[in-house]
Amino acid sequence: MTPKRRVDNLALFGGERLFSEPRHVNKPNSPPRELFDRYLDTAWSAAWFSNDGPLLRRFEARLCEQFDVRHCIVTCNATAALDIVLQALRLPPGGEVILPSYTFVSTANLLRLAGLKPVFCDIAADSMNADPEQCARLISSDTVAIIPTHVWGVPCDIDALEALSDQSGVPLLFDAAHAYGAVHGTRRIGGFGLAEIFSLHATKALHAFEGGIIATDDDALADDLRLRRNFGFSGNDQVDLPGVNAKMSEAHAAMGLANLDVFARTIAASRLCHETYEQGLRGIPGLVLRMPDPASQPNYHYVVAELDAQQFGMDRDTLTRLLFAENIWARRYFYPGVHRMTPHLPLAPQAPVSLPQTERACNRVLVLPAGAAIDLDDVRAICTLLRFISENAAVIAGRS
Amino acid sequence: MTPKRRVDNLALFGGERLFSEPRHVNKPNSPPRELFDRYLDTAWSAAWFSNDGPLLRRFEARLCEQFDVRHCIVTCNATAALDIVLQALRLPPGGEVILPSYTFVSTANLLRLAGLKPVFCDIAADSMNADPEQCARLISSDTVAIIPTHVWGVPCDIDALEALSDQSGVPLLFDAAHAYGAVHGTRRIGGFGLAEIFSLHATKALHAFEGGIIATDDDALADDLRLRRNFGFSGNDQVDLPGVNAKMSEAHAAMGLANLDVFARTIAASRLCHETYEQGLRGIPGLVLRMPDPASQPNYHYVVAELDAQQFGMDRDTLTRLLFAENIWARRYFYPGVHRMTPHLPLAPQAPVSLPQTERACNRVLVLPAGAAIDLDDVRAICTLLRFISENAAVIAGRS
Repeated sequence: MTPKRRVDNLALFGGERLFSEPRHVNKPNSPPRELFDRYLDTAWSAAWFSNDGPLLRRFEARLCEQFDVRHCIVTCNATAALDIVLQALRLPPGGEVILPSYTFVSTANLLRLAGLKPVFCDIAADSMNADPEQCARLISSDTVAIIPTHVWGVPCDIDALEALSDQSGVPLLFDAAHAYGAVHGTRRIGGFGLAEIFSLHATKALHAFEGGIIATDDDALADDLRLRRNFGFSGNDQVDLPGVNAKMSEAHAAMGLANLDVFARTIAASRLCHETYEQGLRGIPGLVLRMPDPASQPNYHYVVAELDAQQFGMDRDTLTRLLFAENIWARRYFYPGVHRMTPHLPLAPQAPVSLPQTERACNRVLVLPAGAAIDLDDVRAICTLLRFISENAAVIAGRS
Repeated sequence: MTPKRRVDNLALFGGERLFSEPRHVNKPNSPPRELFDRYLDTAWSAAWFSNDGPLLRRFEARLCEQFDVRHCIVTCNATAALDIVLQALRLPPGGEVILPSYTFVSTANLLRLAGLKPVFCDIAADSMNADPEQCARLISSDTVAIIPTHVWGVPCDIDALEALSDQSGVPLLFDAAHAYGAVHGTRRIGGFGLAEIFSLHATKALHAFEGGIIATDDDALADDLRLRRNFGFSGNDQVDLPGVNAKMSEAHAAMGLANLDVFARTIAASRLCHETYEQGLRGIPGLVLRMPDPASQPNYHYVVAELDAQQFGMDRDTLTRLLFAENIWARRYFYPGVHRMTPHLPLAPQAPVSLPQTERACNRVLVLPAGAAIDLDDVRAICTLLRFISENAAVIAGRS
């Protein structure tokens, strides 16, 4: 890691890369290997590797305790989780589902495949979460569900959204993919809406290699989901409904349990990373870190910067290119916005959308390499580089 | 394991159970733990746990070699594999798909969810596989696909089915969930039809805890499937189509690789189990083992008995109850036939089906605990019990 002294030292202009290997937005956490091995041992000795196994049950029970909910159904991944929830809700074909465009593309993809119509709502400028007023305006007689996301793990305006759901009778599901560990008021995320859906993908704060969680207090929904997760089987030869395979293996449950055991340490490490960025980027004009609210017990898993091109002296995409050249795989998020992605463009002519806050976030946000597994020296080097770029923004922008 | 001397010794009549723990139809194989650990080590040290990882690529490359096909796409499970194949084929809503009823329920479930119509064909009495003549009769202008299963790993009448597909222009997919390792002529199963889909579920001959494989020689289909497996992403911010998450984790790929390394041993052990049953059940009237054809290089993973109630002196379901009471979880397969399962019953009024060979198999087949991981002493004890039941069939049937 040779610090840059001159603009020529930047990798984009032929200089040596800051890092020989890519630094990713979220390098997966690894628990101590022995911890994972010990969990897996029990599955291995019983040769019970899937199908409602003891590790899965233990994992689900611990998650129920964490969230203080009656049911946690873990799945092979979060997309499969949402898929069986949508099936369980038996939504009428063509029904409209309100969701932010400023989120991961999977939800809208799934809606399309399920014959439902994504209706994109704008976000609130401050939280980057679905704006309840915008959602309220989009509700029609065809609305069948609302699926906001707790973006960056910051809880949505839950009270307003629950009130909207109560008033309209439209079921509310939360995409909690980013939000493991966070609280709203005195209650953990996981306990709101009809159900909340978490991702346990390797790059998430809590992970199980791949996986998903559905948290709900609804007994009937939970029963239905357990059937749907396993082909609809309610007994050896009895299939009650057209279920799929959304099962989590015992190997994945073992990883989930191991990561749960060390989760306090994971958060502490991620917090240290976040604080290192806070210190290292302080005072850089036009580069503003989004600060998690300690009251919501954030998991500090994402380090999210907003770039004001004018103040910084360079636009976000130029900066991204500079960083990529250095092997810093900082990422535009959620770029370009789901409503501008190929599979969802055909919706636009029918339902032209004006999403000014979404566009603003899509064009300003840069997510930096972070998380519990990152080397803090790398973080400091990234901050030094960003400061160098800021100080030489005019020259660099002129050349790139 | 106390052998039964009197009918009263049977657990159903209050005697001690033959086994203190259930003996399942397919206890999962475990490769040597060190072998799995060594593969997982590489993923662990790189903290690369999913998303087109090195183990997945290695696994896919080895499968391509095995099958002599251009593409193997591995997935989180076989249902997800078939799901993305159906999506990739862009079949018209309401299209008819011909498949046997004598198969696992997942395919028909998926068709229903995809808005397609399962049309059940009967099986050939000898092979228990989809009867090509019956398939031919069911082809209509609405037929959009044919999906036969290589039941028990016995290859379908592939030549006739491929000819039917060629003549009709209807794409042919094989459900090869049971058939890893088998050959048809000189070619491995995996190389036929437009694509073949394998299950890597824990109870299969080759497994990856959970998983699936799509084997195909079609480059365009393979490209499409790789996009669909990962949300449609063709680049960092580029989503080409509404994909889902059908990814296989590196932990699962590690298990797949380890099981591939020991597959010859797995087959040898399963074969020994099969031969032990052959010997142990020889001459029991009305209980006939289905014999795999060595020319097809069978994996010997299933031990499939057919019961002639008259000759045996007791019907299959009574025998099943007796065995369950002893903790021998022998299973009726595929019982009661997919066309008689709740989610698929509503089809019957529209399309009354007469599936005499399917009904016959559903009512006669009993799959016995088997596979590479079984203890041969258990197999011998099961055979001894079956012989005892046969010799006392009249008395037992009168009491149960």
